[in-house]
Amino acid sequence: MPRKKQKIGATTSICLFIASTKRAQRRRNMTELEKAQAQTVTEAVRAASEAEGLDPEKIAEGIAEGRVLILPRHGRGEPLLIGEGTRTKVNANVGTSPKRPQEADNLRRAEVALAAGADALMDLSTGPNPRGMRERIMGTVELPLGTVPIYELAVQFASLQKPFEQAEAQMFLDAVEQHAQEGIDFVTVHCGVTRSCLQPLQRAKRITGVVSRGGSLTIEWMTKTGQENPYYERFEELIEIAKRYELVLSLGDGLRPGSTGDATDRPQIHELTLLGELRDAAVEAGVQVMIEGPGHVPLQQVEMNVALEKRLCRGAPFYVLGPLVTDVAPGYDHITSAIGGAIAGAAGADFLCYVTPAEHLRLPTPEDVHEGVVASRIAAHAADVAKGYAPAVQWEKAFSVTRMSRDWTKQIELALDPERARQMREEEEEATGEACSMCGEFCAMKRLEGLDGS
Amino acid sequence: MPRKKQKIGATTSICLFIASTKRAQRRRNMTELEKAQAQTVTEAVRAASEAEGLDPEKIAEGIAEGRVLILPRHGRGEPLLIGEGTRTKVNANVGTSPKRPQEADNLRRAEVALAAGADALMDLSTGPNPRGMRERIMGTVELPLGTVPIYELAVQFASLQKPFEQAEAQMFLDAVEQHAQEGIDFVTVHCGVTRSCLQPLQRAKRITGVVSRGGSLTIEWMTKTGQENPYYERFEELIEIAKRYELVLSLGDGLRPGSTGDATDRPQIHELTLLGELRDAAVEAGVQVMIEGPGHVPLQQVEMNVALEKRLCRGAPFYVLGPLVTDVAPGYDHITSAIGGAIAGAAGADFLCYVTPAEHLRLPTPEDVHEGVVASRIAAHAADVAKGYAPAVQWEKAFSVTRMSRDWTKQIELALDPERARQMREEEEEATGEACSMCGEFCAMKRLEGLDGS
Repeated sequence: MPRKKQKIGATTSICLFIASTKRAQRRRNMTELEKAQAQTVTEAVRAASEAEGLDPEKIAEGIAEGRVLILPRHGRGEPLLIGEGTRTKVNANVGTSPKRPQEADNLRRAEVALAAGADALMDLSTGPNPRGMRERIMGTVELPLGTVPIYELAVQFASLQKPFEQAEAQMFLDAVEQHAQEGIDFVTVHCGVTRSCLQPLQRAKRITGVVSRGGSLTIEWMTKTGQENPYYERFEELIEIAKRYELVLSLGDGLRPGSTGDATDRPQIHELTLLGELRDAAVEAGVQVMIEGPGHVPLQQVEMNVALEKRLCRGAPFYVLGPLVTDVAPGYDHITSAIGGAIAGAAGADFLCYVTPAEHLRLPTPEDVHEGVVASRIAAHAADVAKGYAPAVQWEKAFSVTRMSRDWTKQIELALDPERARQMREEEEEATGEACSMCGEFCAMKRLEGLDGS
Repeated sequence: MPRKKQKIGATTSICLFIASTKRAQRRRNMTELEKAQAQTVTEAVRAASEAEGLDPEKIAEGIAEGRVLILPRHGRGEPLLIGEGTRTKVNANVGTSPKRPQEADNLRRAEVALAAGADALMDLSTGPNPRGMRERIMGTVELPLGTVPIYELAVQFASLQKPFEQAEAQMFLDAVEQHAQEGIDFVTVHCGVTRSCLQPLQRAKRITGVVSRGGSLTIEWMTKTGQENPYYERFEELIEIAKRYELVLSLGDGLRPGSTGDATDRPQIHELTLLGELRDAAVEAGVQVMIEGPGHVPLQQVEMNVALEKRLCRGAPFYVLGPLVTDVAPGYDHITSAIGGAIAGAAGADFLCYVTPAEHLRLPTPEDVHEGVVASRIAAHAADVAKGYAPAVQWEKAFSVTRMSRDWTKQIELALDPERARQMREEEEEATGEACSMCGEFCAMKRLEGLDGS
């Protein structure tokens, strides 16, 4: 439970006033987290809380304790809350790839994600000009944007045909700073993939090894250079960059399972314990963090994964990829991950990364992006209903009332994807009238109307 | 746990031999359940168990105790097990409607359901010639077939433009017998919608009232005639019909919730307690039953609904419709119900009725049927993995191994829907080669291959 503010007397008030004036002088340089820790409710926190019908003071308390974070949007668009007690949010990954470098296609993915109702974007471009791609997205799509700076480094070395291990440790940090300067809202940094993980990883004899691109690049670099992961060894410098630019650190799970058989194994949990320690250091230094989670997880382990993250990372916002509850359904991984995402969200996961039907097969088309965002929004909303998040429960009820009254106009308006509902309804409307073509005159709701059942 | 057979001495053996000879003489008239209660493992039970890699004797014990049932298929196709310890099965509903009476279209739905991997079909036709429709399906599609005989009665009265309350109680039973004679494998009978439900239903002030067609017809009939539900009042006669034809009774949930806000309310649970009592009477009389369940259920109530059914109905196979974990996503109810179905299955539900993307909007197209069956199969398989059902866990592992080795031929062969995976992969294959177009040269699995990570 969020702690309550104590009532204070007059003398204390004056002291606090002086202290708060001093704080105000420093405010320009304080991060959102530091301000929350100083019991200041910023304009961004107030606006984002009120947009969700939440109490700004409680949210500020959550931010102060690292259980909620705010993406302040650096002057672009509205700030966004992620974490305990807030609406479960949905991220859509887009990006070019070496084989599919077309920027216009990728911009279209980002636009479709926005239109389908995503709350945030990550651009994971590994095509030839990732920076230009980010700029185009930021100039066009009004959503918080995240990136994985290590990809940029990998693309640079690949384009120069130089082996990745020639990257210097400083370049890892410079890549983050460059993204921060551009106004990126959050970055994935695989800080927990350390030399201490290498032996546990070997001993685990995984079915699918390492499936995180950032994780595999880091392991490749550590193994070939014999050095420690720069994002771990120089985490304090990373914190300083994040602080300077109000950048949220998303602590990546480079050792996430890539198959249900590998889920919740020792390397995964070893990394999670390290992320928990880093979370403490970041929050203490005034930098907001979230923790990234799996991945491929069989259904009966999903809730446990969330509980474990919340315990080991002191309630830090949990950002999960899916999770996919089965491996065997390529072509339908928006569904396998909607199942896992809904269960994770209900158990307390805060931020769902969508998965599209194209996952494991190819880069998504705009249509795949649409299906992925909608499936993930369904999962997030089902989780919010389960958690008793009031606006979600109210939406359910308002919608169900229109179903009972067969008020199709209102029902379609309230639908999660009104366009799809309208289109499917209209295909049949002429033939069916008030009831739908499944039941027609045998519509149960219609038939009993006005009948006194006593 | 299934009870163990006791070891027996020589004298006892002789007595048992005589008893078993007597039983053998009666065998022609015994039902599958009676044979299991007499500790006979029938050919059907043996074949169905072995097809699933299960111990026929344990399955026979489960049948004897009413925790497992066998659809013996009346000479058409293979027998099918439903219940504890067996693979979670998927049913596809098809059927004509007054506004969409085309039989060829409906036959196509049934064929697509079979091709997509459904385990059973229900034909819910309310078009002009339901009997002809059933015959065409039985003659073409090799799957166990269920029906709802009360629909036939409603269709007859509607076609004669006579009010439904003029139906006589005997006609309710005759409709069941007619379906049984035709060789139908299981019928839904809404036995638990009794006069005792009417007041609780009114007092519950539901958002969406009654949404079961069979339930609403029964309530209409009871209210207008002042009589009790014939399927309840004359349940013993129903049992006799079921016995005569080896018909499985699927005790319908006419009061299932039609919105998440109505879930697990007093009328629903009142009906479930009655179904539990009827289950006892049926099993005692040697008739196999399953219990039908919701419907629209918010995620946090799904597991509880399964636990409650298993307790109140002494482990009877549970046949759930979805459940849909949110109301607000028309056009995507295959996904809302895959979420609920997976959770229900993992909690012990045995038989998942699919829901298509067209639910609540119109009759499904063949494409909708395909999507619905696949979504439901994903849910059933995810549940089987969660329950530790060995063949499901083995399938996961075998599949994941092919993903790691990028053995696309084998991977596609092992996919839940090989055709879809092949098609999406082939759209990109030329451009991508071994890795997929999402990561290309940055494929994590490929990159670390052969790297000594120690």
